[in-house]
Amino acid sequence: MTILDVIAKKRDGKELNKEEIDFFISKYTNNEIEDYQAAALIMAIYINGMTYREIKDLTIAMAHSGDILDLSALGKNVVDKHSTGGVGDKVTIILSPLIASLGIPVAKMSGRGLGYTGGTADKMEAIPGYRTEIPENEFINNVKKIGISLITQTRNLAPADKKIYALRDTIACTESIPLIASSIMSKKIASGANKIVLDVTCGLGAFMKNINDAKELSKTMIEIGKLAKRETICVITNMNQPLGYAVGNSLEVIEAINFLKGEIMPDDVKDVVLELGAYMVKLAGKGDNIEENKKTLLENIKNGKAYNKFLELVQNQGGNIEYIKNTEKFEKARYIRNVASNKEGFVQEINAEDIGKLSGKLGAGRKNKNDKIDLSVGLVLNKKIGDFVRKGDKLATIYANSEKLAEEAEKDLLKIYVLGKEKTTEKTILDIIK
Amino acid sequence: MTILDVIAKKRDGKELNKEEIDFFISKYTNNEIEDYQAAALIMAIYINGMTYREIKDLTIAMAHSGDILDLSALGKNVVDKHSTGGVGDKVTIILSPLIASLGIPVAKMSGRGLGYTGGTADKMEAIPGYRTEIPENEFINNVKKIGISLITQTRNLAPADKKIYALRDTIACTESIPLIASSIMSKKIASGANKIVLDVTCGLGAFMKNINDAKELSKTMIEIGKLAKRETICVITNMNQPLGYAVGNSLEVIEAINFLKGEIMPDDVKDVVLELGAYMVKLAGKGDNIEENKKTLLENIKNGKAYNKFLELVQNQGGNIEYIKNTEKFEKARYIRNVASNKEGFVQEINAEDIGKLSGKLGAGRKNKNDKIDLSVGLVLNKKIGDFVRKGDKLATIYANSEKLAEEAEKDLLKIYVLGKEKTTEKTILDIIK
Repeated sequence: MTILDVIAKKRDGKELNKEEIDFFISKYTNNEIEDYQAAALIMAIYINGMTYREIKDLTIAMAHSGDILDLSALGKNVVDKHSTGGVGDKVTIILSPLIASLGIPVAKMSGRGLGYTGGTADKMEAIPGYRTEIPENEFINNVKKIGISLITQTRNLAPADKKIYALRDTIACTESIPLIASSIMSKKIASGANKIVLDVTCGLGAFMKNINDAKELSKTMIEIGKLAKRETICVITNMNQPLGYAVGNSLEVIEAINFLKGEIMPDDVKDVVLELGAYMVKLAGKGDNIEENKKTLLENIKNGKAYNKFLELVQNQGGNIEYIKNTEKFEKARYIRNVASNKEGFVQEINAEDIGKLSGKLGAGRKNKNDKIDLSVGLVLNKKIGDFVRKGDKLATIYANSEKLAEEAEKDLLKIYVLGKEKTTEKTILDIIK
Repeated sequence: MTILDVIAKKRDGKELNKEEIDFFISKYTNNEIEDYQAAALIMAIYINGMTYREIKDLTIAMAHSGDILDLSALGKNVVDKHSTGGVGDKVTIILSPLIASLGIPVAKMSGRGLGYTGGTADKMEAIPGYRTEIPENEFINNVKKIGISLITQTRNLAPADKKIYALRDTIACTESIPLIASSIMSKKIASGANKIVLDVTCGLGAFMKNINDAKELSKTMIEIGKLAKRETICVITNMNQPLGYAVGNSLEVIEAINFLKGEIMPDDVKDVVLELGAYMVKLAGKGDNIEENKKTLLENIKNGKAYNKFLELVQNQGGNIEYIKNTEKFEKARYIRNVASNKEGFVQEINAEDIGKLSGKLGAGRKNKNDKIDLSVGLVLNKKIGDFVRKGDKLATIYANSEKLAEEAEKDLLKIYVLGKEKTTEKTILDIIK
C-alpha cells in the first residue's frame, strides 16, 4: 500500500478500509507522508465524504496516534463534556464542580483557546495561584481525593488530530462534518472518557451556522460513539448571541462564581448547565429522569454544595480562594466604560461572532499559540435579545487596558446591538440528539 | 483575494474566474503559495472538473509563468507538433526535416525524456557532435538560414506547469483531462507555436488507455486552442504496441534515418508521419487537401529532399554526418541477443508499456532528472501484431550492456509476446479531431 493508492481511492469516491486509514494516520503522525499528500486526501474527503464506519476508524486512529489517558481507576462510567465552541461559554467552570458535588468523579482536561477568548484552562488561570499544569498522577490523585480536578492538556493527546486540524485551516477544509466529528471525538477518547455529553453550539457565533448542520454533526458524533463504544449524547444549543452576560477571561470566571453561589443565574446559562448536567448525571448512572436530575442539580446550587466543591477544587490546586469569596479582588482592567444606547427598541440581535471578535481586539484571546492573553479585559452585556432599551440605557460595560481600544470597542458595540420595534426571543436548547 | 477563497470556490464546484486562476499561478510560481495549498486546489479541480474557459485561462496563465519564445520572425503560421507520449516514437526526427524540406520553417524544441526511453533531444544526441543546447538567437538564425533547427528546451518555459506536473505525480492527480490538456497546451504556447498538431496516443503504452478518454482530451485541447487563438488539430494514434520496430535512443535514430532514406518505412510509422505531416502542411497554409499533402510528403522522401534536409540539420548543429550516411558507425551495445519464439501462432499483443519498461531496465531511460541515459541499448522488434510466427523464428533483437540484463530481457520479451490462433490487426490512425 502507498499513500497514492489511498488518495486515489478516496478521490474516486470509494470507501477506505481500516488498514488504509491506519496507514495514513500513523505515517502522517510520523512525518512519513508529506503535508501536500495529506492535503490532497483531506480535500478528497471533504468533497466525497466518509461513511460512519470510515469516520469511526479515523477517530480511533487519531485517538491512538498519541497517549491515551487511563481513567479506569476512577470507575467504569467516566463522563466528560465538550463544547464545539462559542462566545461567553463558562459552562465547564460551573458544571464541573456541580457534577462533582453529586459524587460523580470529574477528571477534566480542557484546552487552551485559540481564538477570541481563552479556553477554560486560561480562564481558570485568572484565579491567582491556580495550577492548570500538574502531573498526571497528581491529576488522578486529586480526583480520587476530592472528586474533581480541572487542568489543561499536558500529554501528547491525539497528535494526528493536531496536525490535520492545523492543515485543514490552511486549505479551506475546516467545515467538513466528518473531519470536525472525528477531531472532537478523537480528543475525547484520548482523554479517557467513555461517556460523552456534547454541547453542539449553533448560530452566528458557532462553527455550525444552521440547525441542519448542527443536527448532522450531532448524528455523526453519536454514530461514531456507538461504533467506538463510547455512549454519546448531543445537546444543540443556541449561539446566536453570547452565552450569559460576561465575555472575557476573569469576567467569565466571576460570572461562573456568581452562578455557583446562586446569586446571579442568567437564564440561558442555567438552561445549558442544567440540560448538559442532567445528561451527564444520567450517563454516570446516577438517575434516568432528566427533569429530576435538573432539580437535583439546582438543589446543589441552592444548598451551596456546588460552590463548596469549587472552593475545594481551587484550594486543592493552589488557587487563592479569597478571590472566589470576594470577586472584587480580581484585577480590573484600567479603562471601564459604560456604553449607552443611542436609540430605543427591543434588542433583536447581538451577533456572538462580532462580540467574540471585539473581545479578541481588546486582548482577551490569542491568535498564535505563544501569544499572551490579557485576562482582565472583555465586556459585560447589560441587555440581551428581547430586552427593551431606552435611549441612554446601558447596553454593556467594556473592560480595556487602552483608552483607544475602549473607544473603538464602544463604536463597535453600538453597531453590534441591533434594535427594532418587535420583541424577538431566542430559545436556548434547540434539540437533543441521542 | 486569498488562496483560501480560490480553494473554497473550486471545492464547492464553482467556476473560477481569470483573476483567481492568474492569482494562483503567479503566486504558486513565486513560491508564495504552499505545496499543500496547491495540492488541495488540484484535488478539487480533479474531482470537480473545469470548464473550457477555465482550462484556457489556466493554460495561458501557465504559459506566461515564464519565458515566451518569440518566433514571429519566422512568419505568422509557425506550426508545431507534439505527442502525448509513447514507446518507439521517432516521428519528430522524421517529420521535422520532412516538413522543412517543403519550405515550412521548423523551429522545434523538444524535451528530454523522463521515463522508459529518452526524449527526442536525447535521441538526437546519439549522433556524435550534435548540439541540442544552443543559444536562442542561434536557434532562430538556424531556422532562418536552413529552415530547421531541433534543440532541447533551454529557457524557463512554463515553470508553473513544471511545478504542478511534479506535484500531481505525488498526489494521485496525473490522470485529469483538464490538467493534462492545460499542461500540454501551455508548453506549446510558451514555445511560440500558433498552429499546433497533436499526436494523441491511445492504448496500452499511452497515457490515455481508451478511445473515449483520448477523444475527450483531444476535444479539450482543441477548445483551448480555439479560445487561445491557436488553431489545433488532434490525430489520435494507436499505442497498443510500440511504433515501428526500434525502441531505444540510437536504435530509433537509425530507424528514422532509414525511413528518411526511403529504405525501410514501417507501415505504422508511415501512417503517423504522413497523417500528422499532412495536417501540419495544411495549418502552414501550404495545401488544404490532406491526401494531396500526403503524396507531396512521400514524394520528398523518395526524391531525397527530406533526407538531405536532415543531413543539413545535423551538419549545421555540429553532428557528424558520416554516421547518418553509414548507420553502422553508431556505437553498438556489447551484448546483442536474438530472441527466438518458443511457440507458434499469430502475434496478438506486444504491450507497449511492458516494452517501454523493458527498455528502461536496459538503461535507455532515466528515472530522475540527472540520471545518465545509455544511448546504445534497447531492442528491435522483428515481428509485430498480425505477423505469423513459427517456433524458432526471431521475435526481436535485444541490445544490452550487461549479459545478465540481456538474459532477463529475453525472458521478459517471451512473456510480452502474446501469440494466438487468430490473426488480429491494429489500425494506426484511430480518429482525427479538429
